[in-house]
Amino acid sequence: MAEYKLMRYEDVKAFCEKCFEGYGFSAQEAAQITDILLTADLYGVESHGIQRLIRYHKEITGGLVDVHAKPEIVFETPLSAVIDGHDAMGQLLGKQAMDLAIEKAKKNGIGMVSARNSNHYGVAGYYARLAMEQGLTGICMCNTEAIMVPTFGKRAMLGTNPIAFAMPAEPVPFAFDAATTVVPRGKLEVYNKRGKPMPDGWAVDENGHSSSDSDRVLKNIIGRVGGGILPLGGAGELNSGHKGYGFALIVEIMTGILSGGVTSNYVYKREHGSGIAQFFMAYDHGMFGNKAEIEAALTQYLEELRESDKALGQERIYIHGEKALENKARIMAQGIPLNEKTYAEMKMIGEYTGASDLLPEEY
Amino acid sequence: MAEYKLMRYEDVKAFCEKCFEGYGFSAQEAAQITDILLTADLYGVESHGIQRLIRYHKEITGGLVDVHAKPEIVFETPLSAVIDGHDAMGQLLGKQAMDLAIEKAKKNGIGMVSARNSNHYGVAGYYARLAMEQGLTGICMCNTEAIMVPTFGKRAMLGTNPIAFAMPAEPVPFAFDAATTVVPRGKLEVYNKRGKPMPDGWAVDENGHSSSDSDRVLKNIIGRVGGGILPLGGAGELNSGHKGYGFALIVEIMTGILSGGVTSNYVYKREHGSGIAQFFMAYDHGMFGNKAEIEAALTQYLEELRESDKALGQERIYIHGEKALENKARIMAQGIPLNEKTYAEMKMIGEYTGASDLLPEEY
Repeated sequence: MAEYKLMRYEDVKAFCEKCFEGYGFSAQEAAQITDILLTADLYGVESHGIQRLIRYHKEITGGLVDVHAKPEIVFETPLSAVIDGHDAMGQLLGKQAMDLAIEKAKKNGIGMVSARNSNHYGVAGYYARLAMEQGLTGICMCNTEAIMVPTFGKRAMLGTNPIAFAMPAEPVPFAFDAATTVVPRGKLEVYNKRGKPMPDGWAVDENGHSSSDSDRVLKNIIGRVGGGILPLGGAGELNSGHKGYGFALIVEIMTGILSGGVTSNYVYKREHGSGIAQFFMAYDHGMFGNKAEIEAALTQYLEELRESDKALGQERIYIHGEKALENKARIMAQGIPLNEKTYAEMKMIGEYTGASDLLPEEY
Repeated sequence: MAEYKLMRYEDVKAFCEKCFEGYGFSAQEAAQITDILLTADLYGVESHGIQRLIRYHKEITGGLVDVHAKPEIVFETPLSAVIDGHDAMGQLLGKQAMDLAIEKAKKNGIGMVSARNSNHYGVAGYYARLAMEQGLTGICMCNTEAIMVPTFGKRAMLGTNPIAFAMPAEPVPFAFDAATTVVPRGKLEVYNKRGKPMPDGWAVDENGHSSSDSDRVLKNIIGRVGGGILPLGGAGELNSGHKGYGFALIVEIMTGILSGGVTSNYVYKREHGSGIAQFFMAYDHGMFGNKAEIEAALTQYLEELRESDKALGQERIYIHGEKALENKARIMAQGIPLNEKTYAEMKMIGEYTGASDLLPEEY
């Protein structure tokens, strides 16, 4: 049996939508959640895609996600808002929050929305792109379960805390989306599966010392005995790990602090609800002059970067977001790669939600 | 003769102010420039302090900086502005631009100002703190001469591109200020002076390959033959160098692109004027609820970070900006450390500007 099966996008989509309807979401809500979930697969970010269906299943059936929650605007100005998600599905809150930021940006130039009591919402870049698709610049951030250890610490106190930024350009937009940890947890899992020692500077053990032992670090994270993943820049200050730590701290401010919610060190540690917090911003770059000229200047600079001299042995300089769009074209044509474990989970979830008849088959 | 002499802050300040008046700046302008310049020394950022006086001297006497330039607002909305510096001293444009962003934030909630045709303006954190001192959140960014090589490239196409962020908290504010390169150029110079090989992942040679030879890399940068400093995250994608490259690209967008100015690959390469561009933002975090509660939540989180478990062998977890304030208290008491070379340059500049009578003596 192959490790990966390829499934037609449309088939996986139909199955997912029926699953989410089975949990009690409306057809429109199920379509929204599915679109965001599968966007990760299309972009090649497998960790945030269909393989996470089991996680959502557990969070929905375990009561962490409230299927019937209606995210509520609890504070608002013409340029800003705070939304309380009331433990809603992150994707539903996320779409609503970015739509509100976009509406404010279209009306007044800028919209900033901070949201509390949310849940996992998929890839941050999805929401930044929503603004970009409306001709605006989009920014999105998210805190998560604590997994990042601050510089000189040994206790995870910050999340992976991604920052996404998207702005229109030709032929493809600039669409940055990056965790502020040096690597995502998924990378540790890949090294663990392969039994390979990790590079130095990715993670620390329970003493706060750099460790190449992914098994030990992952067990420590699960057992919450100390250690975790390092900030972008690695251990200590030699390669500027304090900078990644600072970027992650900014994300905590824009999400947990501004929303009146919680910071990552309290996420998944409360009586009910994960407590994840998110930030959504849109602004009209036409606030700085002729929009077409500004976008043309970005297009020109991105082209200069692409065309600039390559390192010996390298053939290409990438712009952020290019790989995602190339993956999307390829995966739409070839199918979404699913490993056996994920397929087995889908089978179980299909039975639970009454979507078994739509379980996709290998093609 | 000692390598470093300690000079009383007030003496250095009086000398600097007279020097800048000697170039033709008004007393108020000279005081403003000096305050920003010496703030770097007080914060312990020697590279951006008084040792850079010689650079300003060359740029002013060489005509790159126009002493009589009046920065001009060329585009404006209630929330935004574009300023053309007309080759003004960066510190004068910087103060004016952040003051405008603060004024807009106080009136409407948010102010975003992008500036072109500026010059070196000292530490980015200074401007972010201006907003913070007014009870707002401040953000500041700057592009520079191209020195950062994009991931998989070998030609410097981006600047050191610092990002600064400051927000009030007790007992000390959160004040982040970091270049998006893995290290500043000054670090390479320190390793070069000591004849020590650099750690891997800081810089690349003219072929775009990681190099520990600081002498070679610095000569290549000066000769513009290729190579340069790597983005935060280092070489390639293993430790996520593409993330640092992305953060730097965002800085280019907010500065050179939004202002209608130039990106770092054109800075210092034009007929006249350096072309440096900067971005200034202030927003009132009271747009998200009760301001005192929001600041108290930040204060609490920063305290939790400080108090969290230390790595074995470490005694302290820092919050960004703490070291700067501790340095300031120490240096105000002990004096500013000046090396012989800087002192000799000050002597020459004092003679040129007619400020010799105020040249500080060792104490």
